[in-house]
Amino acid sequence: MGAFSSIILLVYVAATLLSISEGSEHIHSLIRQPVAGTVSAESDPAAFSCLSWRFGVETKNIRDLPTVPKVCQHYVADYMLGDQFLQDSKVVTEEAFKYAKTVKLAGDGKDIWILDVDDSLITHVDFYAQNGFGTEIFDVTALINYLAQGISPALPESLKLYRRLLRLGFKIVLLTGRMEPSRNLTESNLKNVGYHSWEKLILRETGEWNDTTQRAHKSAERRKLVESGYRIIGNMGDQWCDLLGDYPGHRTFKLPNPVFYTE
Amino acid sequence: MGAFSSIILLVYVAATLLSISEGSEHIHSLIRQPVAGTVSAESDPAAFSCLSWRFGVETKNIRDLPTVPKVCQHYVADYMLGDQFLQDSKVVTEEAFKYAKTVKLAGDGKDIWILDVDDSLITHVDFYAQNGFGTEIFDVTALINYLAQGISPALPESLKLYRRLLRLGFKIVLLTGRMEPSRNLTESNLKNVGYHSWEKLILRETGEWNDTTQRAHKSAERRKLVESGYRIIGNMGDQWCDLLGDYPGHRTFKLPNPVFYTE
Repeated sequence: MGAFSSIILLVYVAATLLSISEGSEHIHSLIRQPVAGTVSAESDPAAFSCLSWRFGVETKNIRDLPTVPKVCQHYVADYMLGDQFLQDSKVVTEEAFKYAKTVKLAGDGKDIWILDVDDSLITHVDFYAQNGFGTEIFDVTALINYLAQGISPALPESLKLYRRLLRLGFKIVLLTGRMEPSRNLTESNLKNVGYHSWEKLILRETGEWNDTTQRAHKSAERRKLVESGYRIIGNMGDQWCDLLGDYPGHRTFKLPNPVFYTE
Repeated sequence: MGAFSSIILLVYVAATLLSISEGSEHIHSLIRQPVAGTVSAESDPAAFSCLSWRFGVETKNIRDLPTVPKVCQHYVADYMLGDQFLQDSKVVTEEAFKYAKTVKLAGDGKDIWILDVDDSLITHVDFYAQNGFGTEIFDVTALINYLAQGISPALPESLKLYRRLLRLGFKIVLLTGRMEPSRNLTESNLKNVGYHSWEKLILRETGEWNDTTQRAHKSAERRKLVESGYRIIGNMGDQWCDLLGDYPGHRTFKLPNPVFYTE
C-alpha cells in the first residue's frame, strides 16, 4: 500500500493547492486512483491476457496496484473506444431496466434509484485517451483542468436507463464522491448532456479522498435516505464502493471500468 | 422466479429419488442451477455480445434465468475448452498467491484458507461439454451419474494454488455445498486428482438445495470456524455465495464460471 498511499497523498495535496477559475470550485474530489496491475504482466508480457486481467479487476480479484499494466494499454484503448465497452454497459443497463419494470412502485414518491456520476452517468474516456489509458499515474493538474471544463459526455446506455427509470416513475438520487464545491460544475455538466432532473444530488463535504472515506460516505448517505423513508430499489455505479456497504439497495448493478478501481 | 423455482424443485425431487450404487451415496447436493441468460440474446442474437453477457454474469449483474443463451453455446465452449478460461483462473490464483505471501502467519495453526470444491478445486467441464454448456436445462439423471463416477479433474491453477498455500503454512478448509452422504465420494475424487490433505472438509447435512440454504450454510460454517478461534485469511470459490455473507474472510477470490450462478 506504500505507493498507493503516496499517490493518494499526492493527489490530495496537489488538488488542495489548485482551484478552478470557473467559480473557484475545487474539484479534487473528482480524482480517483488508477486500477490495479499484476506482477505477471511485467514478468511475462507475451503470455499475459489483458482480457483475463480485466476479468480480475471487474470481479474484485485484483486490487491495490497503481496502474493498468503497460502491456494492456492498446487493449484498454481498443476496449473503451470500440464497441465492447458499450456492449458491456448495455448488458448492465438492460438487466437493470428488466428488473425495474418488475417493481410495483408504491406511488408515494419514496421509491428511489441511486446512480453514481463519474464514469457511470458521464465518462472521462476522452481524458484517459489523452493520458495513456491508466497505464501511467495520471497527471493531477491535467486531470483537474479537464474536469473543470465540465465537458464529459454521457454514457449512452446510462442516459437511456436514466430516461426509462424516470418514465417508470422512479425518483432519481445522484450519489457521488465529488465534493460540495463542485456542485455547480457537476449540475452543469449533467444538464448539458441530458440529465435534467433528480430528487437529490448528494455530494460530500470536503475532506480526504480515499477508498475508506468514499465507501463510508456512500453508506452513510444511503442510511440517511432509508431513515428518511426512502426505499432504495436499485443502485448503479462503476465501482464496488458504490454497491457494497450499508443499505446497498434491493438490486445493484456494476458498470464496467477498466481504468479505475475503488472498493 | 417461477421457472427457476420449478427447476430447483425438479432437481430436488429427482435427486431424492435417485441413489448412487457406489456406497449408496446421495449426491443431489452437487447439483446447481444453470446461470442466467438475457432477453436481448433472443430478441437480437446477431447483435448480442457473449463476452458482455459473461461480464454481466461474473459481476452479479445478470441473475435468475435458467440457462446460458443458446446463441452463446459455441462461445462458452470455446471459452471453457480453450485457453481463456485457464488464463482467467490464473489471474485469480496468482493474485491470491501474491496476497497469501504477504500474510505473516501466527504459527498457532489457526490461519486458514477456505476453498470451495465444485468448479473451484475440480471441474465438471467434461459433463458440460456433453450437455450443451448450460444452454439447456441439465439432465438431472445424467448429471448425477457423471458426478457419481468421481472423475472430475482438478482445475490446474487451483491445484497449484492449493500446493502453494500448504507450503506457506496455511491450514486448508474445504467448504462445500455437497451433503454428508457424498463425503467418501468427494474425498476420493479430490485425492485422486492431487488434493491430499486438509484441516477440515465441511459438507452440509441433507436438506433442500437452493441459493438461500447454500449461502446460509456457508455463512454458518464460517461463523463456527471463527468462533472456534480460526482466522479466515483467504477464501476462494467460483460462486458469489461462497464469498458473500458473514465472515467472508480478509480477502476473497472469485474464480470464473460461465455455466452456473448462485449468490
